[in-house]
Amino acid sequence: MKTLQVELAERSYPIYIGTDLLSQKELLTKHIKRQEVLIVTNETIAPLYLDKVSALLTEFKCDSVVLPDGESYKTLEVMNHIFDKLLSEQFSRQVTLIALGGGVIGDMTGFAAACYQRGVPFIQIPTTLLSQVDSSVGGKTAVNHALGKNMIGAFYQPQCVVADTNTLNTLDDRQLASGLAEVIKYGLINDLDFFEWLEKNISALKQRDSQALAYAIERSCQDKADIVAKDETEQDVRALLNLGHTFGHAIETGMGYGNWLHGEAIATGMLMAADLSARQGWMSADEVSRIADLFLAAGLPVQSPQEMSAQKFLSLMSVDKKVQDGVIRLVLLKGIGKAIISDDYDVEKLQETLVAFQEKQ
Amino acid sequence: MKTLQVELAERSYPIYIGTDLLSQKELLTKHIKRQEVLIVTNETIAPLYLDKVSALLTEFKCDSVVLPDGESYKTLEVMNHIFDKLLSEQFSRQVTLIALGGGVIGDMTGFAAACYQRGVPFIQIPTTLLSQVDSSVGGKTAVNHALGKNMIGAFYQPQCVVADTNTLNTLDDRQLASGLAEVIKYGLINDLDFFEWLEKNISALKQRDSQALAYAIERSCQDKADIVAKDETEQDVRALLNLGHTFGHAIETGMGYGNWLHGEAIATGMLMAADLSARQGWMSADEVSRIADLFLAAGLPVQSPQEMSAQKFLSLMSVDKKVQDGVIRLVLLKGIGKAIISDDYDVEKLQETLVAFQEKQ
Repeated sequence: MKTLQVELAERSYPIYIGTDLLSQKELLTKHIKRQEVLIVTNETIAPLYLDKVSALLTEFKCDSVVLPDGESYKTLEVMNHIFDKLLSEQFSRQVTLIALGGGVIGDMTGFAAACYQRGVPFIQIPTTLLSQVDSSVGGKTAVNHALGKNMIGAFYQPQCVVADTNTLNTLDDRQLASGLAEVIKYGLINDLDFFEWLEKNISALKQRDSQALAYAIERSCQDKADIVAKDETEQDVRALLNLGHTFGHAIETGMGYGNWLHGEAIATGMLMAADLSARQGWMSADEVSRIADLFLAAGLPVQSPQEMSAQKFLSLMSVDKKVQDGVIRLVLLKGIGKAIISDDYDVEKLQETLVAFQEKQ
Repeated sequence: MKTLQVELAERSYPIYIGTDLLSQKELLTKHIKRQEVLIVTNETIAPLYLDKVSALLTEFKCDSVVLPDGESYKTLEVMNHIFDKLLSEQFSRQVTLIALGGGVIGDMTGFAAACYQRGVPFIQIPTTLLSQVDSSVGGKTAVNHALGKNMIGAFYQPQCVVADTNTLNTLDDRQLASGLAEVIKYGLINDLDFFEWLEKNISALKQRDSQALAYAIERSCQDKADIVAKDETEQDVRALLNLGHTFGHAIETGMGYGNWLHGEAIATGMLMAADLSARQGWMSADEVSRIADLFLAAGLPVQSPQEMSAQKFLSLMSVDKKVQDGVIRLVLLKGIGKAIISDDYDVEKLQETLVAFQEKQ
């Protein structure tokens, strides 16, 4: 097992990464301060791991709530089911929430913990590659609104994160690929060495080699934790982590939540950012091809959906959280491993990228 | 005009108290950092003050959302209308929200500001006595849940508070009395001098003497600010501010939100706390009578509703935020001006108080 500390002063917490961690009771229990626990999970994960996790918590007043599975359920309405359970079972301000599932469960449970009685502790047990490398670090919690993804939320840190790589064995291929998109992102942002390691090891990862996966998770979490430690509430460098996200969120919102997986949408988004950067003369066509090749090898899409016209993109992108004084700030690339935040790009070239990526019939 | 500073390190903010402050443009505009403003108000307040406030903000992109009036609308669903407006009109993370109204508008707008894009600034313009002396200080924001009052929320501080005593002229008598309950609370908690001032000045306050009101608001805000500065997130002494609230919230929830005004419910609640304290031998029957007399002079109820049996009270009180390890912690009195937090009371005496206060048919 590897332990990685996310350094955020009094909000610091450990991430445990390894195999069969869901059999290690103390990992969890030492982070539960009081007598009450509510596990939040979904219909897909509950049959696989709920009993296993509950069995570790017999010394507590422990209950669970099982939500429907999918991004389309990451709403205020569904989050309210968590509050229904907490209140009908008279859980006090001393409860610890446990998020057992992927990014949707993690984001929604974290936000519920931030709000219940104005804040109770929570623990993340991410069960997808995407949530292990992304939502488990950095404390961004949120729900979606019909008009924009992750628009309602809070910055709120967990007590600990338990990333058991065994849970990835039950993940379907599409979900695994979606997680790889976020892994590749860390290489693109500021870790060229890691990007090159990924080029060499992409088939081992696709084949779920547990050592390769553990290494990729650890390095991704470390890269993300380093950035978050510098800028917890995204005033500055943390925005680099949004590489591909302004394009990607537009695809997710425009196509209806859950139709494109988050990783699929941001993979296409990152390639669009690379393409725009190349049009600006900031990186070579050769580098763009390397990125496209890695996404293809990972099983990720490299074109935006036919339904997403340039106009639809622009309209959706302009409600993104990165808009400042009317200008869409984008994360772009000055080469692989060199992401920058910029509003100094040519809007016509953005238009060209949007048109070029739209899938033809 | 008086300016009172709430000291919370980098979250410190001023409260402006005086007459005709809604004509002073700079009070507001100097606290708006960017180009976008959304005013949140309700159907009662909008016809009275919305144009006046909007007129101060012509240099900004400014829009408004008008919500239904009343405690029963302080819900996640109604709060979502604020997000609908913000997103459909493409308000960015640079927006400042302005809460124009009573406690319901303040609590809901503050919570919406805490959550929109994970946090945007907001300003309070409280238009009721209750919100001027209570919700404007301390950063507690929340919405209600069918099973408990203020159960979903955040600690989130405003940029400033503008308390214009002129707005109290449009308040109905019942709302004014409700505000006086919170004012009297500060005397009971730790300010015997103020309690005695209130005994002398209660008719001036009822007659809306503007000097008396301004003094009462200022002293209440100062008393509250002193406590909040010591304990922002209620780990400790801040809980004293909940005098009467555990009883009062049970009445509000049990009777249906909005049927009893908040101040009415907590007035009865404070008297119940005093009664229980007297039964414990901690204060004299004489002091309890003085408190009851002041509430009666203010036009506040001194009995709990007929519908609230002791059993119903206990069931509702046990989901209160103040419950710790199964015990209901109460704020009780060791005399007027000497509130304490205690779980060391006789449960049978609590039962006696609950029975004694229930209004007979």
